[in-house]
Amino acid sequence: MVIAPLIERKRDGGALAPEEWRSLIQAFALGEVPDYQVSALAMAVMFRGLESSELSALTDAMIDSGDRLRWDGFPVPRIDKHSTGGVGDNTSLLLVPLLAAAGAAVPMISGRALGHSGGTLDKVEAIPGFRTRLSLREAEAQVRDIGCVMLGQTNEIAPADGRLYALRDVTGTVESVPLLAASIMSKKLAEGLTGLVLDVKRGSGAFLPQLESALELARTMIALGGSHGCHTVALLTAMDRPLGYACGNALEVEEAIAGLRGEGPADLMEVSFALGVEMLLAVGIETVRPAARFRLEQAISSGRALDKLRELIEAQGGNPAIVDDPGVLPQARHSEVWVALRDGLVNEVEPRGIGRAINAMGGGRQRVSDHIDHSVGFHITVKPGHVVRRGQPLATIHAREDHGLDVGRRALASAVRFGETASPLPLVSHRVTTAGVEDLA
Amino acid sequence: MVIAPLIERKRDGGALAPEEWRSLIQAFALGEVPDYQVSALAMAVMFRGLESSELSALTDAMIDSGDRLRWDGFPVPRIDKHSTGGVGDNTSLLLVPLLAAAGAAVPMISGRALGHSGGTLDKVEAIPGFRTRLSLREAEAQVRDIGCVMLGQTNEIAPADGRLYALRDVTGTVESVPLLAASIMSKKLAEGLTGLVLDVKRGSGAFLPQLESALELARTMIALGGSHGCHTVALLTAMDRPLGYACGNALEVEEAIAGLRGEGPADLMEVSFALGVEMLLAVGIETVRPAARFRLEQAISSGRALDKLRELIEAQGGNPAIVDDPGVLPQARHSEVWVALRDGLVNEVEPRGIGRAINAMGGGRQRVSDHIDHSVGFHITVKPGHVVRRGQPLATIHAREDHGLDVGRRALASAVRFGETASPLPLVSHRVTTAGVEDLA
Repeated sequence: MVIAPLIERKRDGGALAPEEWRSLIQAFALGEVPDYQVSALAMAVMFRGLESSELSALTDAMIDSGDRLRWDGFPVPRIDKHSTGGVGDNTSLLLVPLLAAAGAAVPMISGRALGHSGGTLDKVEAIPGFRTRLSLREAEAQVRDIGCVMLGQTNEIAPADGRLYALRDVTGTVESVPLLAASIMSKKLAEGLTGLVLDVKRGSGAFLPQLESALELARTMIALGGSHGCHTVALLTAMDRPLGYACGNALEVEEAIAGLRGEGPADLMEVSFALGVEMLLAVGIETVRPAARFRLEQAISSGRALDKLRELIEAQGGNPAIVDDPGVLPQARHSEVWVALRDGLVNEVEPRGIGRAINAMGGGRQRVSDHIDHSVGFHITVKPGHVVRRGQPLATIHAREDHGLDVGRRALASAVRFGETASPLPLVSHRVTTAGVEDLA
Repeated sequence: MVIAPLIERKRDGGALAPEEWRSLIQAFALGEVPDYQVSALAMAVMFRGLESSELSALTDAMIDSGDRLRWDGFPVPRIDKHSTGGVGDNTSLLLVPLLAAAGAAVPMISGRALGHSGGTLDKVEAIPGFRTRLSLREAEAQVRDIGCVMLGQTNEIAPADGRLYALRDVTGTVESVPLLAASIMSKKLAEGLTGLVLDVKRGSGAFLPQLESALELARTMIALGGSHGCHTVALLTAMDRPLGYACGNALEVEEAIAGLRGEGPADLMEVSFALGVEMLLAVGIETVRPAARFRLEQAISSGRALDKLRELIEAQGGNPAIVDDPGVLPQARHSEVWVALRDGLVNEVEPRGIGRAINAMGGGRQRVSDHIDHSVGFHITVKPGHVVRRGQPLATIHAREDHGLDVGRRALASAVRFGETASPLPLVSHRVTTAGVEDLA
């Protein structure tokens, strides 16, 4: 296959034919197209974008490079959610059992931490024994049995995307809206979903901090979902501060369990309910918002959501005792309360620095092969807008040694900022559908 | 060395520090930076360009990746010319001995055919026995001895450029003005020149067909030459039709010899004299144009230029008999006269198709390792503006088999076009110096 003329055409603002994208991605997945040509093409796409027919063909080609989940004869609607990534975002851990308890089927495939942001796959692996490497046939069987599964992206699912993503990660070609959309949607559409709800983050801790880029990404993914028969809706949510209190793998599992018990931090619960309601509406399990919200609250108050989490953990080989005794989760050896260094109004809790500190403390990877210490992280109770007094506890640092505590202290000192006024982003600011953008704030 | 942030910075419109370019190119030349990162960076440069400090640092780094010619204590000014590439452009073969006969030292390093355009190195290798792989020390000795040398780019000269060029060639990143300028100038500046004259082609057969791009390339190279102590001037010349009559390696050698005898086609002689005059002026061997022109004509009419060619060929192991008997050059087995298929005004002789046909007939490479048949090509006497009659001979095709003749016929039928009016570009249209652009047409 001759690639250079395709790169030149994209570079000059032209489009590749769907058949050209198909052949290119097919050959790339087989290792028949050199990385140096694909990275140059990806950079040209950064500048020129993709037409919708190209985006669709690229996404299809990535899906077709692998297998997909099959639901023949299974009557329950399949729903999933996807977050574009942030710090302290454990809504997936909470929503998978919650939606299954509310009557949906949730076949979630998720990824690992990326850059400063956490990854659901790493979080769920904080649960002792929890297996995320299931075959697609095992995953289907589990969903038919208990209504949900949480598995990692394997070589069975969109392997071309896995390969392309690894390349983009080191060639400055991550932040392209169409490439992000194709990457996310190729994995999600391979799940054979009825509906999908996207949690598109904005603010300083998001991959695309600006509202306009976040909206463009949302619109692009919604169109892509729709054209593939998957009803897709997006909520834009705030990532100008961490979500909830817990930041770090095991800590976030613990907080998600609290949430399923109805005891989660207010912001985490608000975002989770907002996403959960959209999920129920997207697949028609409920048709009006109050009924959907009531169904979710019932699943929690009845204990069914928590039971579903136990079932899920048990089905995947994990220790369900963590649900009732968080002490079974990995515990950091060192903890230290971090207090306000001055009086004043906190106007910012910058999430990127927090996410990077977790990595530096051993809770993330510098390389794919790195081992993660799931126990480390932060419990940050201070939020932008809080008025605090010197000496007041604002956070707890969980580290494995003194060095980690030191990294944590420095990260907090730099992330927690004071000012005259605070204007954090609204938690859930926009709802994006094929019909347009609805301002919720 | 961490490359991704540098790619991102260039992508976002920023500049790399000179030291960053130096380290990057150094590491790339050593094979320590993956091709996929460099190709992505090159594509970002296609869109964002380079600041002049970056261009200078990149060029220096490419020069410093290898050795250079050294002229300590050698009093004769060194001059060279470089063409940005075309079809039938054999001015180098003519100018090297001519300028040496006129008193300059000409240490020419040249390259192979690229795409549709011919390469001086391939042309000179049509001379039986001619060695182009000399060490730099041998080359210096030969210039000190006879005043000129024609050698190929080796791994001694700007190896980082060789590596980068090969990568750009297959990643759609050739046509970037700063990258073209850095590539050309890194090789030329390694020659240790006093002066350099650039023949920047424009028109449909040029790599940058548009006047504005050609001017930009000229200006960029002139600035780069000036900042490296090499007085650089550019002429913009026509490549909307082949130059001279001969197109093909051995045929062009024969035509250059005719030129050195004073019997070359008018257009070839006009461009060669224009370039030669600039070369003499650039290094101060002459200070006024008429004197420079007279010096060149004298070198031809006296037979000294032709003698110099004999010396050059002999010094590099070739058979000097070709100078007096072109029959010693490789001869194509099949020749066929191609005649006008209709009456009319020829308004175009499109060079790209001619160049590609020579490749298809075996006179160029599809891969670096391909063997070239130096004998094949065209002798095209028709020029845009000629009025011809049906049946009138317009060209001769030289091929190695019937298939080649067929390729040749089809190429001519498509390249030679008729119309109501003809408006070929002026042969030498602009002169570009640090002082500005002079319109010569």
